[in-house]
Amino acid sequence: MSTIPSIASGERGEEVDRVEAIMGRGGTRLRKRMESTELYLERVTAQAGVPLAGHASATIMAGGKRLRPLLVVLAAESAGCSQDMREGEEQLIRAAVAVELVHSATLVHDDLIDGARLRRGHPTVVALAGREVALATGDLLFSRAFGELAKNGSGTQLSALSAASSALAEGELLQREDAYSPHVTVERYMRRCELKTAALFEAACRLGALMAPAGDPAALAGALAGFARRIGLAFQILDDVLDVSGEVERTGKARGTDLLDGTVTLPLILARAHEPQLASFDLATLDGPGGQEKAEQLCERIAATGALGQAREQALQLVAEAKAELPAILPGGRSELLELVADAVVERYS
Amino acid sequence: MSTIPSIASGERGEEVDRVEAIMGRGGTRLRKRMESTELYLERVTAQAGVPLAGHASATIMAGGKRLRPLLVVLAAESAGCSQDMREGEEQLIRAAVAVELVHSATLVHDDLIDGARLRRGHPTVVALAGREVALATGDLLFSRAFGELAKNGSGTQLSALSAASSALAEGELLQREDAYSPHVTVERYMRRCELKTAALFEAACRLGALMAPAGDPAALAGALAGFARRIGLAFQILDDVLDVSGEVERTGKARGTDLLDGTVTLPLILARAHEPQLASFDLATLDGPGGQEKAEQLCERIAATGALGQAREQALQLVAEAKAELPAILPGGRSELLELVADAVVERYS
Repeated sequence: MSTIPSIASGERGEEVDRVEAIMGRGGTRLRKRMESTELYLERVTAQAGVPLAGHASATIMAGGKRLRPLLVVLAAESAGCSQDMREGEEQLIRAAVAVELVHSATLVHDDLIDGARLRRGHPTVVALAGREVALATGDLLFSRAFGELAKNGSGTQLSALSAASSALAEGELLQREDAYSPHVTVERYMRRCELKTAALFEAACRLGALMAPAGDPAALAGALAGFARRIGLAFQILDDVLDVSGEVERTGKARGTDLLDGTVTLPLILARAHEPQLASFDLATLDGPGGQEKAEQLCERIAATGALGQAREQALQLVAEAKAELPAILPGGRSELLELVADAVVERYS
Repeated sequence: MSTIPSIASGERGEEVDRVEAIMGRGGTRLRKRMESTELYLERVTAQAGVPLAGHASATIMAGGKRLRPLLVVLAAESAGCSQDMREGEEQLIRAAVAVELVHSATLVHDDLIDGARLRRGHPTVVALAGREVALATGDLLFSRAFGELAKNGSGTQLSALSAASSALAEGELLQREDAYSPHVTVERYMRRCELKTAALFEAACRLGALMAPAGDPAALAGALAGFARRIGLAFQILDDVLDVSGEVERTGKARGTDLLDGTVTLPLILARAHEPQLASFDLATLDGPGGQEKAEQLCERIAATGALGQAREQALQLVAEAKAELPAILPGGRSELLELVADAVVERYS
């Protein structure tokens, strides 16, 4: 395989270009590591028994940006894993693979719950094979993630992945708990984003930093986790902005999908503070016939309050903070590529 | 907590008595270890964030036989972990906890797919809180299992658990693949039982054996895995016999539940060989109104062929083989309690 299929087949133009630019700056070594990750992912899913192989493999191979594996590899490189490390090299690739497997597992389970038909332009596992198969495929991807990382023989690495994986599930539960609620605070929303999104970004950076061949890997892992947390939060906020601003060609989803699902996101929380009538708006009234149209009207009302700009501003602030602290953590120009990743998170939505 | 609630509150009388008898023979040390496991399980689930704690905790605390943790502890004791081991003691309890957490995760996910209302006499998570919460609760229990075991810092232990956890998911997929099929062979059925049931029994014994303070833990783990595999297979076969024989007071489920679900189990496979009309019977015809009644009639027809006795015989044979090889693996009377566990698997159904 001479190119990385996820990037070649990505559906979001600018974002892919941005990742491509990072790959260009990273040079041959980065490209080689990301290709190794891709080949490894292919091998892990192909190893699974038939009929599983088909479903797991289709999910993984449908691609995506591989943003989380990229964070693992870049964190490792910034931590000094700059040479081909022989044994360490394999550890690094396994960590990148494990993080992507956990991410893929959550996508398969999310699609199961949402009854989503398409993901990244391909039919979802639940659409192709039903709920039972989607549930088991997600469970299998989770199990394989831990199985691959276990080969590194490091309890610290496994604890990092397990913490993120637990956080993802807790975030999902928090989201259910808060669904349709008129009382979700910004703090509570941010906590959910930490659990649902930022925790896996954090784990990716932690795992990469833990590969450091010298120095104090644990301290570096802690410092980079702060960076990852901020860009993870920004990533989720901007995703939630996009749901309301409704650039369908970028999201591939109908406008207001989150709202229809009862999910209270930052734009709505901020808009509620501006407009008393929105504060008392009950998302449950979007259920039923004409819901899509009502959701679009609600999106318009949210946008009219200026909440989208405000939410976007919070995300930009988080990214700026994340970038600002990097040079102190990684002096000597070692922070450059991670800063570009932070930019990529923002520019996708600009 | 002075008694083990799972055992005090078990709904299956004889089985609980049998486990109680094993506890009695094991003495104070075994009882203490099982109580520590119980307390640890309680702590793990209570630590989870609200609202999760409630659901995860209810699932775990509703009890069950704790057969898998018992296998972990007995395998460890047979491997020489006979003293309080200080640091090793904590490792052992964590392994027992991790295995039970994986088992609980699969129960929550199984109930989600089956839409089951009751489990062990208590409302299921899906019944109480819906599909999203059940999905996330299962994911969380999986994640916590690996998180707890990661604290032991052993890649070998984690690989054993991950292999079992992957097998469980693969077994579920195989079951879906073979649903309603008129062509399921005995070999294929046994493969499914290995994946769905025996793999976690194996992991339990492997984990216990790996705690051995001396000797060759890996070799012992391999040898005990063979024992565990056989009793796991017998356990599943007898469960499938019970579904057809229909002692509802023991199963808590309606007779023929598996058949209604399209699941082809050993009694049906064997009966098909006896009666040509059964070979061409389409389980899909059980769907729809009157299905329960038709399933019961099918159970009667299967029973009339003598297939239940044949299947039970295969299970007994597996248990006899499992017991026969134990004394050579664990000489000097160290095999006694594991033999009693093997008996418990059978006697439950006799």
